[in-house]
Amino acid sequence: MNKAREFDQSVVSELKAVLGERVSTSHAVREHHGKDESYFPYALPDVVVFAKSTEEVRDIVSICRAHRVPMIPYGVGTSLEGHILAVKGGVCIDLSQMNQVLAVHESDLDAVVQAGVTRKQLNEFIKHTGLFFPVDPGADATLGGMAATRASGTNAVRYGTMRENVLSLKVVLADGRVIQTSRRAKKSAAGYDMTRLFVGSEGTLGIITEVTVRLYPVQEAMSAAVCAFESVDGCTNTVIQTIQAGVPIARCDIVCEKTVDAINKYKKTNYRVAPTVFFEFHGSKASVVEQAETVQAIAKEQGGKDFVWATKPEERNQLWQARHDAYFACLQIKPGVRAVSTDVCVPISRLAECVAETMEDVKDYINPVPLLGHIGDGNFHLMLMVDPDKPEQTELAKKFNKRLVERALKMEGTCTGEHGVGMGKMDSMRMELGDDMMDLMRDIKKVFDPEGLMNPGKVVPLE
Amino acid sequence: MNKAREFDQSVVSELKAVLGERVSTSHAVREHHGKDESYFPYALPDVVVFAKSTEEVRDIVSICRAHRVPMIPYGVGTSLEGHILAVKGGVCIDLSQMNQVLAVHESDLDAVVQAGVTRKQLNEFIKHTGLFFPVDPGADATLGGMAATRASGTNAVRYGTMRENVLSLKVVLADGRVIQTSRRAKKSAAGYDMTRLFVGSEGTLGIITEVTVRLYPVQEAMSAAVCAFESVDGCTNTVIQTIQAGVPIARCDIVCEKTVDAINKYKKTNYRVAPTVFFEFHGSKASVVEQAETVQAIAKEQGGKDFVWATKPEERNQLWQARHDAYFACLQIKPGVRAVSTDVCVPISRLAECVAETMEDVKDYINPVPLLGHIGDGNFHLMLMVDPDKPEQTELAKKFNKRLVERALKMEGTCTGEHGVGMGKMDSMRMELGDDMMDLMRDIKKVFDPEGLMNPGKVVPLE
Repeated sequence: MNKAREFDQSVVSELKAVLGERVSTSHAVREHHGKDESYFPYALPDVVVFAKSTEEVRDIVSICRAHRVPMIPYGVGTSLEGHILAVKGGVCIDLSQMNQVLAVHESDLDAVVQAGVTRKQLNEFIKHTGLFFPVDPGADATLGGMAATRASGTNAVRYGTMRENVLSLKVVLADGRVIQTSRRAKKSAAGYDMTRLFVGSEGTLGIITEVTVRLYPVQEAMSAAVCAFESVDGCTNTVIQTIQAGVPIARCDIVCEKTVDAINKYKKTNYRVAPTVFFEFHGSKASVVEQAETVQAIAKEQGGKDFVWATKPEERNQLWQARHDAYFACLQIKPGVRAVSTDVCVPISRLAECVAETMEDVKDYINPVPLLGHIGDGNFHLMLMVDPDKPEQTELAKKFNKRLVERALKMEGTCTGEHGVGMGKMDSMRMELGDDMMDLMRDIKKVFDPEGLMNPGKVVPLE
Repeated sequence: MNKAREFDQSVVSELKAVLGERVSTSHAVREHHGKDESYFPYALPDVVVFAKSTEEVRDIVSICRAHRVPMIPYGVGTSLEGHILAVKGGVCIDLSQMNQVLAVHESDLDAVVQAGVTRKQLNEFIKHTGLFFPVDPGADATLGGMAATRASGTNAVRYGTMRENVLSLKVVLADGRVIQTSRRAKKSAAGYDMTRLFVGSEGTLGIITEVTVRLYPVQEAMSAAVCAFESVDGCTNTVIQTIQAGVPIARCDIVCEKTVDAINKYKKTNYRVAPTVFFEFHGSKASVVEQAETVQAIAKEQGGKDFVWATKPEERNQLWQARHDAYFACLQIKPGVRAVSTDVCVPISRLAECVAETMEDVKDYINPVPLLGHIGDGNFHLMLMVDPDKPEQTELAKKFNKRLVERALKMEGTCTGEHGVGMGKMDSMRMELGDDMMDLMRDIKKVFDPEGLMNPGKVVPLE
């Protein structure tokens, strides 16, 4: 498993015997699969394969296992902590061609999809049913990747994360066994929760090839609104009081004035350049009116301006697309930079304090520091931009992030609300959960992957 | 670990050195702890200890480990599948005196409790805060026990089960390590989901000593209603259409006419003796009115009578207490009987078919067969009453249950929606999930409990 070791070319010929043309060792393809959206340096796999079925994944896994070669599942490469970097070389298993929606059970409010189906693809596919799938990380990620990283997004405050929205998984294990983790019933008390064990396992326990997800009825009324505030404090306090008042808010995301400015420039929008909360309300018409009135009253007391509404579906989509594009918009503040994206999540009672201390801490950072996040969950991100050619900048950003993680942990928070561990949060997770928990995770890892071939170097060290 | 083996009395003296008077070998105490609410024959532990703290549990575990003696955590003994029976003898660890509410974080909508706190105790404790804890199995079970069995109840259709409502657990492992499975943040993507692994592990992976649970704001309006129907089909169809219409119903439970009759006799109530649905609506006043109107319209088309309302908190509590007491009420139909309680859960599109086929199957059973259940989740129970002195009756009931499980599995359902596996569902679970899943669960069990001392004979066989 030493990267320096010559890659066994017989692996490639065996893979070609199974997959024909869908095997590539070209530098361009390997490079495309050897990077994600993070600040980590590229780490190229030796070969990239494109699977089309669970059976093919099983065959690929058998070949890799026989040659003791690492295997890294790949969706669309949008992770933020180096999850899919081939740090020990090996075979990148691209699942993006496994993009069939296998079943939509309208009456049961669920759908079964291959791992490579993206969240937007699924929502487009089920549009006519009056149902939708709520989990929405910024990128149009694959549902397999989202399950693997326990993704969430703007809707999580009401609809939960992938933890709550995956009903069952089909998984290919390192030894070639193929399991279905659960039946399609809405709840079950049958044994250990293997579904939840794979949700968030980041390809280190097995390769997810099919995902059964929950769907929700599109509500009678769904209205989004943007509200500018005088201060970030005004934003956080408004959201905290909204949650504590029990308003069943569907979305409430913060962006700071730097982020708004970046969005305006990138998207040609004209939002007021100020700390801003993006809200969305779902329910019956009467309920949405009530919710909005409650939140507007809270916002006004916290220095909020008038709500700017988007009620038509296309307007709402535009508004949230602007929010989703914030990450990419902010990267344009300094062309050529990459970002160390922080991801702490704290109990909401500590949110205002955590944000305020953090903004104070980063005020002298070398670049502007945009703030954005899902503050209804207590989860926020800073983008610590770095010049990738100046490693000392990345080191500096990591120091800021380390202080932020320590601050969040003191407040009973977590180092990662939604981005996952990958390579970037292994030390933070140890700080968060302690050595005993890490040892247990390693022991569980060994049950599934005794030889350490499944996405090695991520989540939990084997030694 | 052979039950026939003489119990090592030095264990008792070592336990007494730690716990003083809180160690009992009296037959009465052992018998009380050697039975649950199921049809299984009593299986007495050799000794019962009453722990008051996590540290004491750790010390007890150390003593048991040193002597290689089984240990069985015990809450209030209300499980239904033999979960707490000491089938290999050993030490029953009664946690009911660990009944302190350690923290209520009103702003964060969570509470930290010792494992012995019951659901009603917690709700009484937090009454003044305007918050409540929704998960409500029929019995007033401990939160530790509820976490261990992945319990649910009437509110699960809206608020989820213990799977969704446990934020974090403190657990004593077989080797004496004490872990906290997660921070208190509302979501986290930090590593494998150890919290969910312990939720539903039924004492076989470790002993839960503290539980952090989610709380919810009491809604502005909370109204319950009872609606009688001409047929069970009318009930199931009403609930199915309610769910599919996206009504955010808080509760919708079915009881058949036999169950209503039993409730009336046991509780001195006068509900109309007919297949009946118990509903509850939570939300703003306007929203509750809207929800109720929608559901009433659906019910009317399905042969539903007028709704009988309970809007005051005490009336609502009485109504749901009547529903919760249904199990005990039905046992009075034939004094002296015990019940084989079925617990399948199917996708809601198959619910009507599953219920109808099942009622047809049991129509010639030796005793009346009451039906009750949380049909909004697709989960329903039959009580197959048996004379405990006539083993052939239990065997007959188990045959009916086996057919029901097979029927549910064919419909992509689960053998257990909420009661758990214990001793009673081990074979059914294998049928449901297959040999590979059982092997994986056993391997995970071995990580935590290589010697098989934690609640042996439950969930998954070690050999």
